[in-house]
Amino acid sequence: MKALVLERKHELALREITIDEPLGPNDVRIAIHTVGICGSDVHYYTHGRIGPFVVEEPMVLGHEAAGTVEEVGSTVTTLRPGDRVCMEPGIPDPQGRATRLGLYNLDPAVRFWATPPVHGVLRPSVVHPAAFTFKLPDTVSFAEGAMVEPLAVGMHAARKARIRPGDTAVVLGAGPIGLLTALAALAGGCARVFISDPVAEKRALAERLGPITGIDPAAEPVGEVVRAATEGWGADIVFEASGNPRAAAGALDPLCPGGVLVLVGMPLEPIAFDVVAAQVKEARVETVFRYAHVYPSALALLGSGRLDVKPLITETWAFDRSVEAFEKAADPAPTSVKAQICLA
Amino acid sequence: MKALVLERKHELALREITIDEPLGPNDVRIAIHTVGICGSDVHYYTHGRIGPFVVEEPMVLGHEAAGTVEEVGSTVTTLRPGDRVCMEPGIPDPQGRATRLGLYNLDPAVRFWATPPVHGVLRPSVVHPAAFTFKLPDTVSFAEGAMVEPLAVGMHAARKARIRPGDTAVVLGAGPIGLLTALAALAGGCARVFISDPVAEKRALAERLGPITGIDPAAEPVGEVVRAATEGWGADIVFEASGNPRAAAGALDPLCPGGVLVLVGMPLEPIAFDVVAAQVKEARVETVFRYAHVYPSALALLGSGRLDVKPLITETWAFDRSVEAFEKAADPAPTSVKAQICLA
Amino acid sequence: MKALVLERKHELALREITIDEPLGPNDVRIAIHTVGICGSDVHYYTHGRIGPFVVEEPMVLGHEAAGTVEEVGSTVTTLRPGDRVCMEPGIPDPQGRATRLGLYNLDPAVRFWATPPVHGVLRPSVVHPAAFTFKLPDTVSFAEGAMVEPLAVGMHAARKARIRPGDTAVVLGAGPIGLLTALAALAGGCARVFISDPVAEKRALAERLGPITGIDPAAEPVGEVVRAATEGWGADIVFEASGNPRAAAGALDPLCPGGVLVLVGMPLEPIAFDVVAAQVKEARVETVFRYAHVYPSALALLGSGRLDVKPLITETWAFDRSVEAFEKAADPAPTSVKAQICLA
Amino acid sequence: MKALVLERKHELALREITIDEPLGPNDVRIAIHTVGICGSDVHYYTHGRIGPFVVEEPMVLGHEAAGTVEEVGSTVTTLRPGDRVCMEPGIPDPQGRATRLGLYNLDPAVRFWATPPVHGVLRPSVVHPAAFTFKLPDTVSFAEGAMVEPLAVGMHAARKARIRPGDTAVVLGAGPIGLLTALAALAGGCARVFISDPVAEKRALAERLGPITGIDPAAEPVGEVVRAATEGWGADIVFEASGNPRAAAGALDPLCPGGVLVLVGMPLEPIAFDVVAAQVKEARVETVFRYAHVYPSALALLGSGRLDVKPLITETWAFDRSVEAFEKAADPAPTSVKAQICLA
Repeated sequence: MKALVLERKHELALREITIDEPLGPNDVRIAIHTVGICGSDVHYYTHGRIGPFVVEEPMVLGHEAAGTVEEVGSTVTTLRPGDRVCMEPGIPDPQGRATRLGLYNLDPAVRFWATPPVHGVLRPSVVHPAAFTFKLPDTVSFAEGAMVEPLAVGMHAARKARIRPGDTAVVLGAGPIGLLTALAALAGGCARVFISDPVAEKRALAERLGPITGIDPAAEPVGEVVRAATEGWGADIVFEASGNPRAAAGALDPLCPGGVLVLVGMPLEPIAFDVVAAQVKEARVETVFRYAHVYPSALALLGSGRLDVKPLITETWAFDRSVEAFEKAADPAPTSVKAQICLA
Repeated sequence: MKALVLERKHELALREITIDEPLGPNDVRIAIHTVGICGSDVHYYTHGRIGPFVVEEPMVLGHEAAGTVEEVGSTVTTLRPGDRVCMEPGIPDPQGRATRLGLYNLDPAVRFWATPPVHGVLRPSVVHPAAFTFKLPDTVSFAEGAMVEPLAVGMHAARKARIRPGDTAVVLGAGPIGLLTALAALAGGCARVFISDPVAEKRALAERLGPITGIDPAAEPVGEVVRAATEGWGADIVFEASGNPRAAAGALDPLCPGGVLVLVGMPLEPIAFDVVAAQVKEARVETVFRYAHVYPSALALLGSGRLDVKPLITETWAFDRSVEAFEKAADPAPTSVKAQICLA
Repeated sequence: MKALVLERKHELALREITIDEPLGPNDVRIAIHTVGICGSDVHYYTHGRIGPFVVEEPMVLGHEAAGTVEEVGSTVTTLRPGDRVCMEPGIPDPQGRATRLGLYNLDPAVRFWATPPVHGVLRPSVVHPAAFTFKLPDTVSFAEGAMVEPLAVGMHAARKARIRPGDTAVVLGAGPIGLLTALAALAGGCARVFISDPVAEKRALAERLGPITGIDPAAEPVGEVVRAATEGWGADIVFEASGNPRAAAGALDPLCPGGVLVLVGMPLEPIAFDVVAAQVKEARVETVFRYAHVYPSALALLGSGRLDVKPLITETWAFDRSVEAFEKAADPAPTSVKAQICLA
Repeated sequence: MKALVLERKHELALREITIDEPLGPNDVRIAIHTVGICGSDVHYYTHGRIGPFVVEEPMVLGHEAAGTVEEVGSTVTTLRPGDRVCMEPGIPDPQGRATRLGLYNLDPAVRFWATPPVHGVLRPSVVHPAAFTFKLPDTVSFAEGAMVEPLAVGMHAARKARIRPGDTAVVLGAGPIGLLTALAALAGGCARVFISDPVAEKRALAERLGPITGIDPAAEPVGEVVRAATEGWGADIVFEASGNPRAAAGALDPLCPGGVLVLVGMPLEPIAFDVVAAQVKEARVETVFRYAHVYPSALALLGSGRLDVKPLITETWAFDRSVEAFEKAADPAPTSVKAQICLA
């Protein structure tokens, strides 16, 4: 079949590839409809590696996907051909200790799409376990379905925060994950969100999405703005979604006594963490790694209209222009929030 | 001052009364603007008692109130004359063990408006601790402010449920508390709510408030409807808000494995609780008594527009027609959701 | 092989039986050493059924077992022949939704030893998944290993209670599960336990196990005793382990404000649950069904000596006297706490 | 009265001082019996300050105290003259927002004994709120009562960890707080504790206190030892109690997936925190500041014998030798764990 293959660093090709994927009894075969481009896809393209994961063989890119079930394995009862679906890209080892505890995202043996040496899904079809394939509600499009993967990160962060209805949250960073975290925080019970980002356009977009107030951290300290808006108390929750070590180091400042800091972004180096500053507030710090068990929840919110990701889908490319789409996405100052490739 | 006084069972008078309330250093004096009529106010009017609380002396009614600060005590820094506010009606003993733990709603020594022998606030002004007086956001009206008290019950129930974003909830009973609980559940992160009530008008009103689906329990078992809508899994949360012992006994049926049942309604007699049915799901059961620490959260949600109580305010009466308002509210089949009395 | 077979109600035989159990790649074969007799084994013997589970074919009894690994499947790396082990008797469907969430004890498709039609382990050997087979610490005997199954119920109850160090607990019922729950509560952080049982011998045994105080509920109300010992506040936790509907209905009385009631016992009929009595304390009610993820924890406590089950092992029978052991265990007023059968 | 007064840095005097302390209605007057010497007392003596708290006026030292009630205020019902008690040294503002939430240890207006400008209790008597004065069980000595203050730090850390029965914990640092945290962790449900400290004597003392295994971090990486002992999984909980920035930076290494790191020690500078290392385990990080609500729990554990602090009380000094006791305690390589001064 024809797939978008990363041959090696800086070299992409839309070409034929043979992938042998037998349909197991618990699997389904899915015709891919829409795939979002993630920063990690772009990073493999531009750098050929992410940390210990190195592209040593040609690899199909893409892991944010939605499509239609074509065929189901012999024991599958929850899905039928024709079902519109989206998929979790990681398949854990069911025998792993973390998996059995329900923490399957922490399984070290997980096989994750478009993470070497596992192929991604910028290709016409894929075989996947039914257990990690989720039906789209009728009101949710394929494009929205393909947004569930990045949204799941924000959902997982919101779940870890243990939001109480009416909480105030701060999100540091208004990139795609920051914006989706802000939306998940509001859908998950926050009354309002402050979002900090030095780029005015990102703040402006964020403010159109709901009761979200942008803060320019270069112009005014985030903590001061938040305290001024909360009678000096601070925010119940801070989500660090910038991955910037300096922003992360300052993440405790806007927090209220007894508040929670959720570390979503992945800084490339250790951050300076002021233990005593955390202690005088008895801050709780939660960390997230991908997500687990949140696809059905994300789809329920999209389906009922309590959360809307459509404003973040800013570009749609035809499959045969995939290489061009990646070249544009690799621009160091991207103007797009989320670009998607449509295979249907 | 002129107040709505319950002289004794069945006898209400709008008349002069003298209440001696010195302004302590931590208190504020508030001019009352709007007071909602609660079922408990009506019950004192029609029965002269609620459980152990008996009306033995004339008592001013009303505890769902909003108004304007007129004067502040010597140590008060958080409020100023002119501030628009709403108030928690219960004042706990700060020395009580439950209060010190933060569980002030469980303090047995609490003094609660319009609970004998404590006067309520259907009167021009009241002195109240600043710590239990909360500023209204600019976008929140006095009428909405007076809704915070019953909304707080739903908010507290939603908090106890520990909603995870995207959960499905069932609310049993579509009276005022059931409706407010449904709104709190949605604002608190639920993707959708099923509400069960035998009265078609109540279900119809509920369905206009958001992604809420009415169920007529006389026509179809609640559990069956919910399982059909959740691939057989059940609802993450059931809020029992009917106070009906039979409904409460059936509350476990729609629940999913590992789900939570929140008992909000107060049945007059013990319910039949099927322990084994709860165990095979490992249901968690939470119980709520009034509320604690949720006024700021409720006001934040009203202020940012994430929760809207205005459709539930169905009648507004002038203060001099208070007796008439109560007579109408005492109708055994009320057509109104929430009636309020305006003193301004 | 020779096994203890329940032919039908009231008819036990120690006789040859053929059980075809191939060793799968994730399995181990275990030589059984010791098996405890559980009330459910006895109940199948005396009644031929428990609820919907009916003995329709001859069935081997026994599910509280310890033994030695004889052979391991091709992918098993965590166990080796010669390892001394104990086993969880229930094998869930790994594809089930509850299992994937980590709630495998709630999987409706679970296959559980000595629950019709699944054979138990009063026989020389069994094949079992490695994932549900746990190495005994060197300091833990086979007899103690065979106690882990009933202890796991108490451990799971203690975990659900979310004990805070120094809490006070009440256990209703001093049968084997009540005693093991009391030990788990102490090992899990409680400072002291009150145990209520009408039988003086059981209370006396309990009091020898640690800082446990017996209460005769026929002589003095449990709540009064507990309040007198806690400055009127009540117990942080009540474990209902009697299964007696009347005891369960009174379980809220000894509880403190904000406390938790854990329902461990399985009453045969719904209990009268006083919702308002629970609400004025905002009691949390947890329910337990068997256990999940606690075998390693139980073994760690036994291994380090923080929990000692040896005083509860009151009888040991040779395998060839198994029928006699069951006849004695079926005595309506058993004098033994835990009888075990030794096959080695 | 005669008190141990820190005149200024390096200058201690046992001399007469006048402290005007009227007995308020909610207060008790206590005759001081035993006072422990804390590192912070010594630090004020040797440095004249701790962070922003500077000794500018003569100040009585001591805040770990037990004694006997001499007189009670007019509203006090929970204590009587003659009661043996210990006291929380911090008095929060009951009107503060954190206090009302139950987080009184986070109240910025707290008045804390022997923290400038508040006098400590190395003096014959003190007036204190009854709400922060706790009766000693009959089996608990004054010396043990004076240990409750530092034990409370460990208790609070153990509570924040949310130990599940049978967990494995690691404590970094075997100073007094590390040792008390290890004891609290065991009493709070841990099956075993690993304690890391470079000083062999401290490790040896720790190992005599229970199922505690010492690790010399200079000889072997803590993480490796712990993984070897846990089948490669890691510890459920790590308590950082050394305050050493380098030890704190390595605290994630021994942790299991889904584990919790509790930061108890207070490093003088920010630590290098590896966010990604925390994320791949989804570590939860809890921070503690002093303690709240744990004195009754600590006393319950001491009273029932589930926790024994006596082995840590290594020196007792008469009051008139207080200056000498402090000089010895100020030795940079102290041989004592806890020195106490007896005033009775």
